[in-house]
Order: sequence, then C-alpha cells, then structure tokens
Amino acid sequence: MTDVFLDSCRNIIGGRHVLTAAADKAPYLTDWRGRFTGKARAVLRPANTAEVARLVQACAEHRVPLVPQGGKTGLVLGSVPDDSGLEVILSLGRLNRISDIDTGNRTMLVQAGCVLQQIQQAAAAEGMLFPLSLAAEGSCTIGGNLSTNAGGTAVLRYGNARELCLGLEVVTAQGEIWNGLRGLRKDNTGYDLRDLFIGAEGTLGVITAAVLKLYPMPRASITALLALDNPWQALSLLSLMQDHVGASLTAFELMSDFCLRLVAHHFPQLPKPFATAHPQYVLLEVSSAESEQHAVALLEMAIADAIERGHADDAVVATSMAQSAGLWQIREHISLAQSAAGKNIKHDISLPISNIPEFIEKTDDDLLEAFPGCQVVCFGHVGDGNLHYNVAPADGASHDAFLAHQPAINRIVHDNAHAFGGSISAEHGIGALKRGELSRYKSPVELNMMRAIKTALDPLGIMNPGKIL
Amino acid sequence: MTDVFLDSCRNIIGGRHVLTAAADKAPYLTDWRGRFTGKARAVLRPANTAEVARLVQACAEHRVPLVPQGGKTGLVLGSVPDDSGLEVILSLGRLNRISDIDTGNRTMLVQAGCVLQQIQQAAAAEGMLFPLSLAAEGSCTIGGNLSTNAGGTAVLRYGNARELCLGLEVVTAQGEIWNGLRGLRKDNTGYDLRDLFIGAEGTLGVITAAVLKLYPMPRASITALLALDNPWQALSLLSLMQDHVGASLTAFELMSDFCLRLVAHHFPQLPKPFATAHPQYVLLEVSSAESEQHAVALLEMAIADAIERGHADDAVVATSMAQSAGLWQIREHISLAQSAAGKNIKHDISLPISNIPEFIEKTDDDLLEAFPGCQVVCFGHVGDGNLHYNVAPADGASHDAFLAHQPAINRIVHDNAHAFGGSISAEHGIGALKRGELSRYKSPVELNMMRAIKTALDPLGIMNPGKIL
Repeated sequence: MTDVFLDSCRNIIGGRHVLTAAADKAPYLTDWRGRFTGKARAVLRPANTAEVARLVQACAEHRVPLVPQGGKTGLVLGSVPDDSGLEVILSLGRLNRISDIDTGNRTMLVQAGCVLQQIQQAAAAEGMLFPLSLAAEGSCTIGGNLSTNAGGTAVLRYGNARELCLGLEVVTAQGEIWNGLRGLRKDNTGYDLRDLFIGAEGTLGVITAAVLKLYPMPRASITALLALDNPWQALSLLSLMQDHVGASLTAFELMSDFCLRLVAHHFPQLPKPFATAHPQYVLLEVSSAESEQHAVALLEMAIADAIERGHADDAVVATSMAQSAGLWQIREHISLAQSAAGKNIKHDISLPISNIPEFIEKTDDDLLEAFPGCQVVCFGHVGDGNLHYNVAPADGASHDAFLAHQPAINRIVHDNAHAFGGSISAEHGIGALKRGELSRYKSPVELNMMRAIKTALDPLGIMNPGKIL
Repeated sequence: MTDVFLDSCRNIIGGRHVLTAAADKAPYLTDWRGRFTGKARAVLRPANTAEVARLVQACAEHRVPLVPQGGKTGLVLGSVPDDSGLEVILSLGRLNRISDIDTGNRTMLVQAGCVLQQIQQAAAAEGMLFPLSLAAEGSCTIGGNLSTNAGGTAVLRYGNARELCLGLEVVTAQGEIWNGLRGLRKDNTGYDLRDLFIGAEGTLGVITAAVLKLYPMPRASITALLALDNPWQALSLLSLMQDHVGASLTAFELMSDFCLRLVAHHFPQLPKPFATAHPQYVLLEVSSAESEQHAVALLEMAIADAIERGHADDAVVATSMAQSAGLWQIREHISLAQSAAGKNIKHDISLPISNIPEFIEKTDDDLLEAFPGCQVVCFGHVGDGNLHYNVAPADGASHDAFLAHQPAINRIVHDNAHAFGGSISAEHGIGALKRGELSRYKSPVELNMMRAIKTALDPLGIMNPGKIL
C-alpha cells in the first residue's frame, strides 16, 4: 500500500530513518515512568535542521500531527504520542553535535539532541561550568530541557534552563527555520520569541539548536547538613545564609525527618549525620571562586551565626569536598528510597518561599484528616520555592489501593498550592498529564492568550497536539 | 461638540484626568532627547488597573490607538505619540504604589508607575537590593523599564529587567486584566507570557504591576581602574577576573583613552588616575557579601595576577568605597562630556563578547575611511557585550553638518554589528526610531512570527501602533 506522506519522509531522510515496524517503534512509545504507552504512525529520525524543516513541511502538507522527542525522560507525558496512531514521533537524537565552545563569550552552540551530561562534560573540558543539573542528566537532551524549561539542583544560583539559554534555532510549524542562535546577553530588538519557545513543550515549534551560557567553574563547593525544629526556621536560616554568603549559596534543600528515616532504612550504608532525630533538615552548599579553604571558612562562620541566633539547632559541616559528596547522597537517595518503599503520589509544586511553612502545615493536616495515617514525603529546593510533596499510604496499607485516591489527593495539594500563590508545576511542565489541572487553575484571560498564540504560530494544530492546551 | 469617546473616558476616570488642552498635553508629547514632538487627542491619567482596563475597552470600542507612557525617558521614541493627533496617551504615573515587600520571598509588588529610584529606596529600607540601575533612574518608571527590558550597570551580575521580574499584571488589548503577579522562581505551567510582554514596548498590552526580585545587599563594592594596550587585553582580563572572583565581579566597563581625555577636558576636577595615557581602560568592580576587607583583598589578588600575566599594564585600586565612587564618576561623566563637546551619533549595540575587539578595530577603520578625522567615543558594559559606540565629527568640524551623515554612519556601525553576530539595540529597544533598522536586520521568519503574535493579541492594532513593527 502506498503511503504518500511516509514516502515523502523517506525521500527526505532515507528509508532506514523512517521507523514503522512495531519493534522499531516500541522504544519511543512508553513514557519514562512506564505509566502510558501511545501509538505512532512512524518514528522519524532526521540528521539535521534542514531535514527537520522538510519533515515538518511534509507534516503540514499532509496534516500529520507530530510529537518532538528528545531523551524521553519527562514526567508529564509531554514527549510520547497519544493512542490514536495518527501522530508521528520526530526524534531529535541524531542532532547531537556540539559545534562551538566560545570561552571568550562564555557560550556554547549545541544541537537539540545533545545529552545534558555530554554538554556538561564538554564545558568542563574547557574549564567552564554548564550549571543545569538534574537526575536524568545521563539521558535527557538539551532540546527537551529547554522545551520544558527544566529546573534541577542549581536553580538557586544559576536559574532554570530558560536563564541558561541565550539563543535558539527553531523549526516553525510551517517548516521554516528560524535562526535565533544569538550569543548576546543584551538584545532588545522585538518580541522575546526565545522565551516563548522555551517551556512550550514542542507545541509551537521544534527547538533544533541553542546557544547556552557557560560560567566559571567554582574552585570549591562545601556542604553542611543542619538540624531544624520546623520549616519556619528554614526561612530565617535561608535569609541569614543569603545575607552572609550572597551568590556563594548554591543549594538550599529542605528534607523532613521522615525522608531521612526512609533513606536510612533502605540505604543503611549511607552516613547518618545526627545521633538523634530532628523534625526537619536543611542541606546547604556554599561554593567559592577562591578556594576550598575560603568555602569552608565562609560556611562555618555563617553556620555559627545561624546556631547562635536560633535559626538551626545543630549542624554537621563537611570539611572537604569528599565529605560534601556524602551529605548530598542522602538528599539524592530520597526518591530512590521512596521507590523502594512502594508507589506514591508525586507533586511538583512551587510557592512563594515565605508561604512554604504554612503550606506544609495546612496540607499535612488536610491530608491526614482525609486519609488518616498517610505519609508525606516532603523535600525540595526550598531556596527556589520548589517542593516535591509526595504522599504514600499508611504503614502496611496497599499502595495500589492508595493510588486510586490520586485525584482527591491532587485536589488537596494543588488547591492549597494555588491558594498560597503557588504553581502546580514547578519544573516538570504540563504535558498531557496535567492539562486538565492547568485549565482548572489558570484564568480564562491567560488561557485565551495562550490559545491565541498557539493558533497564530501553529494554525494547523500539528505541533504536539493535546499537550499543555 | 460632543466627543463620545472622550466622554466615556471622563466617565471612567473623571474629567480632570482627561487632558485635552494644549498646555496640559504638552509635557507628554516630546521625547526625552527633545528630537520629536508628537500630537495626542488626549492624555488619560487612570488611577488604578481597573481604570486602565476600562479605558482600553473604550479605546477598543472606538478604535482609538493608545500610547502607554511611563517616565518618558526612552531613547527610541517608544512612548511618545505620532503626529497624526489620533492617538491617546495612557499615562501610568498615578499607579505608583509599592504594596508589598516580602523579605522572606525576596520580592516586592509594585505598580507600573513607580519611579525606579523609589523602588530601589524602598528595597534598601528593608536591607535588600533591587539591582536595576541606570542613568534615568530618578525619572523612569518600572513599567517602562519592563516594557523596554532595560539594562544598565548591574546586568553583568543580576541580568536585565527581564531577569529581575517574576510576575506581571497586564491589561490586554481587549481591556481584560491578566493577573500574572506570581512571586515564583519556578513555574512551568504553559507559555511564557511574562517575557512576551516584557520588552514588547506596550505593543501587546499595558503592564500595570509587577512582582520584582530582591537580592541581599552586598556589604562592600570596591572598584579599580586598569590600563590596557588594546581591547583584546580586555577579553583576557575579563576571563581572568571571572575565574578569580566569579559572581563577585559586578561591573566590567571598557573606556578608550579618548573617552578619558574628553572627561578630563570638560570636568577637570575629576580624578586623573594615571600619569601617562594608555589606549584603553577597564573599570571593574568587585562586591562582597562578607566585608570591605574581603572585597579589597579579592580585587588586589586578582589584579596582581592580571598584571603578572600581562592582561593589564597598570592599575589603580580603590582602597575604600569612597575612592571607588571617585573612579565611577569618570565612567559616568563620559556621556556628559560628550554632550558638552557637541552633538554626536549614538549607537547602542551588543556583540558576542569575543567579537568586541575585532568589531571595534574594523568599525573604527571603516568610519575613518568614510569620514576622515571623525572621532569615536567607544565605551560600555563589555562584561555584557554592550558597547555605546558614538561618533563625533573631526575637531573643529560642524556638528550639525556631521549629523546629516547619520544614515551612512548607522549603516556602517549596524552592518558591522550584524556581521559580527551582534544586535542593533542592546538595551534601548526599537520604538519608532529603529523600526526601519529592525526590518533590515531581522529575518522574514522572525518578523512574520512577531507579526502573527501582534495580530493574535492585538487584532485591532490599537496598542502603541508604529512601534517595533
């Protein structure tokens, strides 16, 4: 049977890069957490921007909806197709070249399919830092990072993916190439199209390349774990730390005692910094352009002041970068410990930092009232106002049965986040998963503007339909 | 004679805030540099966002184009009306309240008509820093700063106005109020409307309020003036400084010897740091969250290394914040000295930092070839890639006659900026003045996307027409 559309795709990128066999397509269809498997008419694997443009032209001509896909590590079903079988997946994996590292301008030019870790390493090889860092960095691609405006652990100091990008190349929904690959820190020449495509999750166009900002590599980063009575103390501790060390504060992560007990239970080999339990902990990191000695002295001075003022009850300060890594491992094992404990209901919310303690108090109360005995695993990037507020069933209760309560639990958590001026998606995006939630919490004025922009840039509606809007 | 439109405006905001007499309108019609005087049907002075919304509704109903106006300090004719007499000016000056300073979230909520200096002072009164700083700060308003994505002297460390804003309130072209006043550092819930309105110069909607980011106030800022042979040395000096002091480098300004001689001639009372002349100078500033002593030690250490490595020939280091202020005065008097010397042709360009030396060399050569004896006053925020590259006639030549060459001189400077990957407007915007230049240097793909967005959000074309597009 002749398929005119697929034949034109084969003409553009060669038959072996147009995957139609079920076994060939399978690796592209299931989302990262294994919750959903879509269908695709084909998987298209272009080699360069010109091929992407021609493929999008073919999609436009034949009205074929397309789903741009990078490392497929998203958590909101943004990069997998729906189950109609009508969509094609546009895999950017072959656009994986780093073509220019300009140390004088502190920028690098990368293609969308470059894996984040590859970019970090290429920068480090030049003695520079590309600060974006997140759990999936070994698999995720920069095109996906930019399309979802990824966050991660370095946002406090360096900002989200948006703040780390100076310029973009985008294939529009008409299959034209927009070369916005500017390496400029100041450019006030019209509308900010760059930031419109960043975070648009592939619904307005396909990001094919980017100019990224690089930073000098700090000479040292030193970590401490502080014991606190409650989240209110974390707020005053954060203010004090920022006052004392300014931009040298590169991480400020809150973790409840329940998080640490979960980690200790599932990973008994990890350090146990305190002999007695405290209700909350803050992991903080100070980086210095000067020296390890300077970082340690700065951190110790600030912590001594924090304890004297009652902003923390106890502290363990790493005295070397090696000890620092050990403390970070506790933080990084929370998600793994949670997975080992069974399924749970995750939320990726953000709040004005000053509202975090009251949000936690009220939401904990509301959940315990509705679901007695449920267990809250609350941790996150408090310096950015971002909490991972996850909910697990009571000890011994069925995890699968508990998951049936997800809509009601989402409602409590998201309603409270919204009421406290927060967001239902801090760093993961909307995708297909949170689309219903988005329309619940966004104002009609904002939704209408978003729809008007979608229609203006993608009038045929072929770009990643069913995501965000 | 009945004017139905103006009567409805009077109903909304009261007759005394609808200015129609020539003498009342006059202060709103002429641009900051006194180069252009437009006409207006009326000046409307609403008191709050609801009134702005109702006025825009009236404008939409009667198809009356409107020009939002703040402090009117822009340099590109973005906030003055054209000479048709059909436009109304929407002056935001009465929306001047600072309603919430949240030290825990490090944010403040301000109305669009707040003067920048008023905002800086309100932050400082709480011990915080609002970093946006520019020459017009005593007159310009934050609504204008955001609408033009203002730059200034603190961009190297803190970014442009865009990076200092977390949320906006906007009255749309339909006269609806979009409440996007979020105080969140992470929020990935759909398209980035905030950054679309920032820098749109009032052509997509009217910014009425904003949530701004605050920073801890550094304990000390210390300045040095370094003598260099050429702009190439400035690049290696910048890299070395960033490597040594990281985010503590808060200013890095290049000035040619001609700039310093101009200042010394017109302001003989200012300090003359070096006994002999050098071709170029860099003013740099190091700030410390710790202490003045730390800032001085850090700066001295870095400069000693710079001189040892040959990245600078000589240096004068301020040993106190008072001495630092004296060195800044030299930099700040360049524009004043230029004005005293007579009219000149100004350019506000940006470049990839690594291309600055070659741009200067080639553009100096091209101009001298075309206009023998012309004098280039080149200085700027080199740490951000932003040059103020101004051109004056040969000694003794007529300034007025020279101004007639402005189109040819613009062409040389802008063509070279474009060829070196730069921008024709780094921090001033496009307005009506550079609209022709914009269409020359932007690609059709980009212009078409901008037009599509303009039409989508302002289908009647009433928002600041003739600006940008």
